[in-house]
Parts: sequence; C-alpha cells; structure tokens
Amino acid sequence: MHISIIGSGNVAWHIAKASIVAKHVIDCVTSKTIANAQLFAQTYNTQYVETIKKLPLNSDIYIIAVSDNAINDVLKDFPLQVNGIVVHTSGATDIEILSKQKQYGVLYPCQTLSKATEIDYRNLPFFIEGNNESTLQKIEEFAKRISTNISYANSLQRRKLHVAAVVASNFTNHLLLLAQQYMTQNGLDFKMLKPLIEQTISKALQTDPFSAQTGPARRHDTKTIDAHQKLIDDNNLLKIYQLLTNSIEKTYNK
Amino acid sequence: MHISIIGSGNVAWHIAKASIVAKHVIDCVTSKTIANAQLFAQTYNTQYVETIKKLPLNSDIYIIAVSDNAINDVLKDFPLQVNGIVVHTSGATDIEILSKQKQYGVLYPCQTLSKATEIDYRNLPFFIEGNNESTLQKIEEFAKRISTNISYANSLQRRKLHVAAVVASNFTNHLLLLAQQYMTQNGLDFKMLKPLIEQTISKALQTDPFSAQTGPARRHDTKTIDAHQKLIDDNNLLKIYQLLTNSIEKTYNK
Repeated sequence: MHISIIGSGNVAWHIAKASIVAKHVIDCVTSKTIANAQLFAQTYNTQYVETIKKLPLNSDIYIIAVSDNAINDVLKDFPLQVNGIVVHTSGATDIEILSKQKQYGVLYPCQTLSKATEIDYRNLPFFIEGNNESTLQKIEEFAKRISTNISYANSLQRRKLHVAAVVASNFTNHLLLLAQQYMTQNGLDFKMLKPLIEQTISKALQTDPFSAQTGPARRHDTKTIDAHQKLIDDNNLLKIYQLLTNSIEKTYNK
Repeated sequence: MHISIIGSGNVAWHIAKASIVAKHVIDCVTSKTIANAQLFAQTYNTQYVETIKKLPLNSDIYIIAVSDNAINDVLKDFPLQVNGIVVHTSGATDIEILSKQKQYGVLYPCQTLSKATEIDYRNLPFFIEGNNESTLQKIEEFAKRISTNISYANSLQRRKLHVAAVVASNFTNHLLLLAQQYMTQNGLDFKMLKPLIEQTISKALQTDPFSAQTGPARRHDTKTIDAHQKLIDDNNLLKIYQLLTNSIEKTYNK
C-alpha cells in the first residue's frame, strides 16, 4: 500500500522502517521541522513536503505520528480532499479527533519506540480502529503486512490499555532509574542488578506477577522495611518506597 | 566442599541445587518444620536433623537460609563448637549478627528465587563478606564453584544494594501486577503488554533508564496525564500513578 507519514519522531521513524520492510511504499513524509523531514526522506529514500497542505492526495493511508498534543495542529492544515484513510498512532487519543476526514482510524503500536533501538516488527502489537468496517479492513491489511500481532480496540479500550502501558512500562523504567541513581550515589554499580531485573521480568511474565512477588513487603518484614527507610536520604525515593511497600502489603494481607 | 543448610525455603532450595550442580556435598539439612526438612533431604538425597542442635560439627560451611526475622532464632540453638564457617544469605542483615561464631560471613544471592523457577547458576550474583581474610577466601572458593559472578560487599554496601534490589525488582513486579489487575478489571488481556514490557527492560538495560524513558510524564503531556487519572477508579493505583508521574516530571525538568 502507499502511505504518507506526518511526523519525524520515534513512532514515525519505526512506522516508516516497518513499512519498508513490509514492502509498503512511502509516497511522502512531512514534519514541523523541515530539516527533520529532509533527513527522514533521505533515510527512507522518499519525498518530503514542507507543509502538510502539500501532501499528495493519492496515498492509501496518511499516518499522523506526532505527539498527542500536536495532532490538532496537524489537522488544522490537513487537506480534506484526500481519498485515503487518515490514521493517528496515539494510545490516548479518541478516534473522533479525525472525524472531519472521510475515512479515518487509529493504528496504535503498543511498544516503547526509540530510533536507536531495533524492534522485531513481526511481533509489534498494533491496536487498530476504523470509522467503518471497510476502513478498518484496509488498516488491518496495512498492519498485517508488518506484524502478526494485531488487535481491535475501540477508543475507550485503547485509552485504558495506554494507562496500563504507562504503569507497566514508563513507571517500571523509572523505578530502574531510581535504583540506578541510588546505587551510583552509594558507590554501587547498577550492572550488578542486571540478572535480578531480567529474572524478575521473565518470572512475572512466565508465571504471573501475583505469585512471583518476593521481598520484605510481601513477607511483611517490618524490621527490614524500617532499616531500608533509614538508608534512603532522598525524600522522593522514600515516598515511593513507602507507597509501593504499603501497596504490596495490602495486596497480600487481604 | 561440605555444607549444611539451615532452612527449606526458596533460597535454601536453590543454594542446595546450585551446590549439587557445582559438586559440593550437602552433609545435612534442617528446618523449623520437620516435614519440610524431610522433603528437602529426600529431594537432594541427603540427611536431615530434627533440630539445629543436632547439626553435624564437621561441615566446611553452614548456610543459614531463613527469613531475616528468623536468623536470631536459628542462632539461639546453633552449636558453637562447629569448626566450619557460618554464613547467612540475607541482603538486609549485618554480618555481626553471627559474631558469636568463630568463623562467619555472608553469602547473599542477589536474585529473585522461587522453587519452581529455574536459574542459570553460573550467572547468579553472589555478594560475599567474611569476618577475616581466610574466611572470605573460603566463602569465595565455595561460591566460585557455583557462579562466575562474585562480588565483595561489606554489610552497609550489601544493605544498600538490597534497597536498590527491592526498588528494581519487588516494586517493578508489583507495578506489573497493578497493570494486570487494571487490565483484567477493564476486560483487557495482560498478555497484550508482554512485548512492551520485554522491550522496556531490554532497552533500559542495554542503553540506560534515563535516556530510555518515554511516555506522557517524560513529555510533560498534562492532557494525557489528566485523562489517565480519570480512567483510574482505584485510589491506591491513582496515588501511585500521581507519585511516579510527578517523579518522572521532576527528573526531566531539572
């Protein structure tokens, strides 16, 4: 299928790469920052236009891959006479933001995407939605060439999925940062925790996080919990320690 | 080397298995619950004794692998005339709890251990400490036959490492549980998040958690953050959402 991509960030970058791997054709890219659009077009051997208004009218799908806050800005200038489907890639944004288009939908890749990190696209989970059955089918056709992991989700489901993704991914990553900072401040090497972290996640995903839980909070080991709190100087980390310890204790004392 | 094991929980179980793989000899096991000691002895084809007082006196190392709160109870009955080294396996407990012994130390496996989950012992991180150089050497000799990943840590370093391990492992696992519970309550399948979670961890460990951070809090996307909070009914999850969002925002707005 022929696509145009609006945006040049992490999501746009990976959608472009995945599309090329899947032998879709990128007609055109555009970005608020022209230098980014240029670099993007060069990298993926395609055309770029300087403004959204100049997008070609004959792509099959127009993929708006910009930050949630910027979708409305893109739509202000979007050529309404396009025949193709217009989709956004946001987990948190309702499909109806696109309702001025003839055919529209959502193509949400539920994955943490950074330009520098390679992704197995065949396993990339896409959550798709369309304003009608035939639009949905075409979006599915596009996505299926990229990945085997396609699910339907309406806007409310997708927004809830996004909440869960933030908890399981963004917050988890932040805890790793807090652990790393604490270790660095105390002359310890974060690498020492690598086997523990890998095993924690693999165990939680292979069994289930409820039964996989270990540690002082699970055992209600108040002596260790108290001692730990005395070893934490940073007030922010201390509050997080207390709230999560409390949450684990509540979970297992029901 | 010849060892005796006190305890029959997850840590005792894995130390026993790892010791056998490394061709150490288990002289004897004991446990507060005799049935557990029996099963343990049967599983690892060794002897058990019904009380700590009856432990053989000629093992090279006595490994106290019980919960932190129970170490003192074990020590009350521990035969002081043993010639071998007495070690505990706790991340949170000072070496000096063992100071009535002649030779003593710590053998802390920094890993989440469950009986049902297989572990690559060659990569199991041990943090060791001894009451003197020759004791430390013998503990190292024991541990090196099991794993290639041995570090020295004094009691304060080990206790701090344990704080970081709780943050990076116990809390991380709990976030996965909270995400799973939220999804189940909203008719979503936790499995959908598996590729995201795996990629999050692998990215954080391959690059670093600071630059790996993505999501609405990192972007200071208040619209999405507000919308998410309206989708969370559970007060405990809401508090965690707010505190961690706030912590991420502070991290990237410095």
